[in-house]
Amino acid sequence: MTTLVFGHKSPDTDSTCSAIIWAWFLSHHEPGAAEPRLLGTPNTEAQFVLKRWGFEMPPIIEDVTEGQPVVIVDTNNPAELPASINKADIRAIIDHHKLVPGLETRGPIEVTIRPVACTATLMWQLMGGHGGHAPDGIKGLALSCILSDTLEFRSPTTTPIDRQVAEHLAAELGVDIPSYAAEMFAAKSDVSRFSAAELLRMDSKEYTVDGIDFRVSVLETTSPQTILARKDELMAAMPVVAAEDGAQQVLLFIVDILREEATLLVPNELTRRVCAASFGVTPSSDTVVLPGIMSRKKQIIPALRAA
Amino acid sequence: MTTLVFGHKSPDTDSTCSAIIWAWFLSHHEPGAAEPRLLGTPNTEAQFVLKRWGFEMPPIIEDVTEGQPVVIVDTNNPAELPASINKADIRAIIDHHKLVPGLETRGPIEVTIRPVACTATLMWQLMGGHGGHAPDGIKGLALSCILSDTLEFRSPTTTPIDRQVAEHLAAELGVDIPSYAAEMFAAKSDVSRFSAAELLRMDSKEYTVDGIDFRVSVLETTSPQTILARKDELMAAMPVVAAEDGAQQVLLFIVDILREEATLLVPNELTRRVCAASFGVTPSSDTVVLPGIMSRKKQIIPALRAA
Repeated sequence: MTTLVFGHKSPDTDSTCSAIIWAWFLSHHEPGAAEPRLLGTPNTEAQFVLKRWGFEMPPIIEDVTEGQPVVIVDTNNPAELPASINKADIRAIIDHHKLVPGLETRGPIEVTIRPVACTATLMWQLMGGHGGHAPDGIKGLALSCILSDTLEFRSPTTTPIDRQVAEHLAAELGVDIPSYAAEMFAAKSDVSRFSAAELLRMDSKEYTVDGIDFRVSVLETTSPQTILARKDELMAAMPVVAAEDGAQQVLLFIVDILREEATLLVPNELTRRVCAASFGVTPSSDTVVLPGIMSRKKQIIPALRAA
Repeated sequence: MTTLVFGHKSPDTDSTCSAIIWAWFLSHHEPGAAEPRLLGTPNTEAQFVLKRWGFEMPPIIEDVTEGQPVVIVDTNNPAELPASINKADIRAIIDHHKLVPGLETRGPIEVTIRPVACTATLMWQLMGGHGGHAPDGIKGLALSCILSDTLEFRSPTTTPIDRQVAEHLAAELGVDIPSYAAEMFAAKSDVSRFSAAELLRMDSKEYTVDGIDFRVSVLETTSPQTILARKDELMAAMPVVAAEDGAQQVLLFIVDILREEATLLVPNELTRRVCAASFGVTPSSDTVVLPGIMSRKKQIIPALRAA
């Protein structure tokens, strides 16, 4: 049976493209062995990247059937995976996030989690020499994943190996990193077609801190003013999204990729207090700029937890 | 703070010695970085191996303190780890068992699980060239782990890489595998000093199959008759151990390493039915021989689950 390879729900560039990369790698060893899938519509950046490197959008699946062989990439969190994931035959997990309880495998499988910025970086390591045999399209996807997850090496999650793999691929492909990254980020910033609720859920993870369930949403953009122009609409949607998703509060961080700072929307007293306790800045209006804050994993969540 | 490296409770050779190997490796990079610990008294084979290669028994710890940096080897199952494990600062997990829900890390860490027979094999792969710098004692421990977990390559869990690493180490050390393995297995078989309850818990894991909690115990030995001579005593201890450990039934498989078969004790109707359903053999007395059965992970548990 063909192995299905997929990343997390609300697919970003890394979740979309690293699934394609690994399916290619598995099929490179054994033709037809694996195919990529998606757990939702990829974001605008991922769609741009697929088109740029000549790939169709992989089929979207709602769930997995019992015994279906799968490889999970870019997450190990069952909340971000199909409802029946533990009934599937999980063959491997390749990820760069914290380990969370939930997944259970039938027997010993290959689990590789490493604290690098990007799943594709880790895949390039795992493939060893085989990455060199990849067609340009696959190399282009890997480069895109790394530029996306590292925000062109600006994010504090960036490790030397992420940069090294990306620079190597860019040189092989003859891609100029700054201009290609600018195109990717412009695609990511093109979010005018989405509703406020869609924006709040676009890149969002749930975290429980001190017994309070937060939805911590991030929008990475080169055009923060476009999103801030919809501030009132976004703040009005927050309680609706929170209630629908079983959270107490949505926190929206608008990350300005070029200025390397985040703007937090402050709709209420709870958010004001969380901001003061976590980032040491007491907001004086309904937005607050947090200089240097770019990474949910490395900066925002640790700050929330430490508070 | 020094990182503590440990394997599972009821330490066997792999859990005891792979902790020492990895502490050596971490300290080889950064002197004093890591120290091995034990979560209980190692079995007689592990004690023999430590002495043979000139190592003291690592200190036994009862629990871990909050924030203690730790590396977990040879398990990812919180039931086999200290009660406060999720309060520790888990830095890495190196294992060859199925993934089970339970562990949670603070951030992304290094998790490596591979379907090889032995943790030490995987470590030798992860160390790359550094294994070559290991002193003979460390190489001897790694060789011992592999011979122990593969039952000298007889177990169906054995992979080509386990065999390859072991044969390479034996050649480097000038060790004759058959005679050294015989010494190890004789040490493992020397269990006369243990009570029946201790024998039932010596190498035992809990599994829930069809809503019934089993304690699946294995005794690997070159002298099954010594253990079978205590059959009545062992069967009498089963309900006591089961009740104390919150299980419904203890299943004891006495694995004859040399004949490559297991003898299951059949104290009651439940065990008789489980044996018939799982192994296709209806016991006609209070013991039954299961030819070829040597591995709990690869044979016994899958058979129980499939039934």
